[in-house]
Amino acid sequence: MQYKKEDLLRCHRKIQPYIHRTPVLTSQALNKIAGAEIFFKCENFQRMGAFKMRGAAHAILNLTDEQKANGVVTHSSGNFAQAVSLSAKIMGIKAYIVMPHNAPQVKKDAVRGYGGIITECEPLIEVRQATTDKIAAETGASKLHPSNQVDVILGQGTAAIELLEDHPDLNVVMTPVGGGGLVAGTALATHFLGKNCKTIGSEPFAADDAYRSLQSGKIENNETANTIADGLRTILGNHNFPIIQQYVDKIIRVEEDKIVTAMRLIWERMKIIIEPSCAVPFAALLREKEQFAGQKIGIVLSGGNVDLGKLPF
Amino acid sequence: MQYKKEDLLRCHRKIQPYIHRTPVLTSQALNKIAGAEIFFKCENFQRMGAFKMRGAAHAILNLTDEQKANGVVTHSSGNFAQAVSLSAKIMGIKAYIVMPHNAPQVKKDAVRGYGGIITECEPLIEVRQATTDKIAAETGASKLHPSNQVDVILGQGTAAIELLEDHPDLNVVMTPVGGGGLVAGTALATHFLGKNCKTIGSEPFAADDAYRSLQSGKIENNETANTIADGLRTILGNHNFPIIQQYVDKIIRVEEDKIVTAMRLIWERMKIIIEPSCAVPFAALLREKEQFAGQKIGIVLSGGNVDLGKLPF
Repeated sequence: MQYKKEDLLRCHRKIQPYIHRTPVLTSQALNKIAGAEIFFKCENFQRMGAFKMRGAAHAILNLTDEQKANGVVTHSSGNFAQAVSLSAKIMGIKAYIVMPHNAPQVKKDAVRGYGGIITECEPLIEVRQATTDKIAAETGASKLHPSNQVDVILGQGTAAIELLEDHPDLNVVMTPVGGGGLVAGTALATHFLGKNCKTIGSEPFAADDAYRSLQSGKIENNETANTIADGLRTILGNHNFPIIQQYVDKIIRVEEDKIVTAMRLIWERMKIIIEPSCAVPFAALLREKEQFAGQKIGIVLSGGNVDLGKLPF
Repeated sequence: MQYKKEDLLRCHRKIQPYIHRTPVLTSQALNKIAGAEIFFKCENFQRMGAFKMRGAAHAILNLTDEQKANGVVTHSSGNFAQAVSLSAKIMGIKAYIVMPHNAPQVKKDAVRGYGGIITECEPLIEVRQATTDKIAAETGASKLHPSNQVDVILGQGTAAIELLEDHPDLNVVMTPVGGGGLVAGTALATHFLGKNCKTIGSEPFAADDAYRSLQSGKIENNETANTIADGLRTILGNHNFPIIQQYVDKIIRVEEDKIVTAMRLIWERMKIIIEPSCAVPFAALLREKEQFAGQKIGIVLSGGNVDLGKLPF
């Protein structure tokens, strides 16, 4: 598919009523540690606490009235489930959420709090997919994918649009890479709106499927994905992978302890709450800081939904 | 002493190079819970992590060059120690900090990180005071008080100046009450710059000296001060008490569990880190929400310096 700048800008206009324009924060202390000038786009302050709101709102907005009348369905136990539930609630339509029965109670409560209708199933990807298909068939609900759907990818790219509006001369924008929606959307935004601005992805060594996919030229799996960055265990998809191949400069991998260190630094120095997945780009910057020395770096802080009862420090 | 609007505004102009203009954040979720429209002035994002930077910078700026050459001295184991150390460092003068030897290592490290010269002493108020006097006599350093000094009080009031510049039609501004510098400075600012805007203080039941002082008409002590809000264990002073008597509408007291609940709500819903003392005004608002229904409430979030290894949840 050929993407156009106007697609992105139209998406950003459409979702305005449903999202916050999140602030961009800076920290002299972290700049000093990193040896670069960092601009943190605070999507942890986004509605429901993560950038996922952007893509979910956009995907639902682009449904026909007839489709909307039947609601939407997705399988997710993370931020996308909350984003779809809240977007659907605001737009007055039904959201069916398929979750594994062993998903944390706090996540089930959050989805229910936003009005999502939960169907629990076995925690196997095949069962979750089949349950989603069954609900779609029975209700006529439109299926939404957290990362591998064009409207979702464009929506996730709007955080970088705002970041570049605020700071047009960034050299690099960094994001985490999970399913690939955020990094792909960001890469489109920096390509169309940046001034020679690169997009660099980052992921844990423990779930480095995207790094390996770029090397092999095909979508790779994770044999295991034993990482604290629970939002980054998923793999790329056929819609976002070509964008990533074309527009993402590279992917930096980080160790688990470096994720926790980066997370704690942001908590302590910036006084903001970010989830582990969200700390990965800053961990990547610190790990390979020589190559970023003196540059202006945008970092999309992807989300702040963390269980305060289970902190890694 | 007679305070004038111009004193406050001059103070605000003078400290500009040394402070951040902190953002004012809002949360639809917390507005809904409180039944009011709340504007959080994020002094947890202030330099060194608390509003104390304002008063410390102002007090040091108003010293003569001769006084500055001899440095400053204060006894504090909390945010004021860090604020004095950082202000002095920026202005190129010496800061002597008297701390009890049993102060947490993390606080000693923070003061040293900002260049403060620590003298440890027995953890008794008389000893701390005597040690401070001795250093002042030996070095000629000027003594700074965390809350009971005119220049400090005016400095602390500048957070409310900015809050009212951003939101001129607030009905109330709420702050915590520890030594009384912040609430007194805030009360001057709302008096001179608000439109019929009240100042309401808040403190733990476990250290309700200010509440009792307003009732009795004289400065009361705390027999014990066993509260999680460790910044609010101190008592009022002769400079700030008359301001509080004249300009503070009232003081609301809160239970310990309500402080923790309020703190957790702000962490979870706003994704920002505040220290326990900082949660007290929001706890007070929730405790007595009927009287604030539908009003526009400013809350000074006083600080975000919390030991992540010792959270109450």
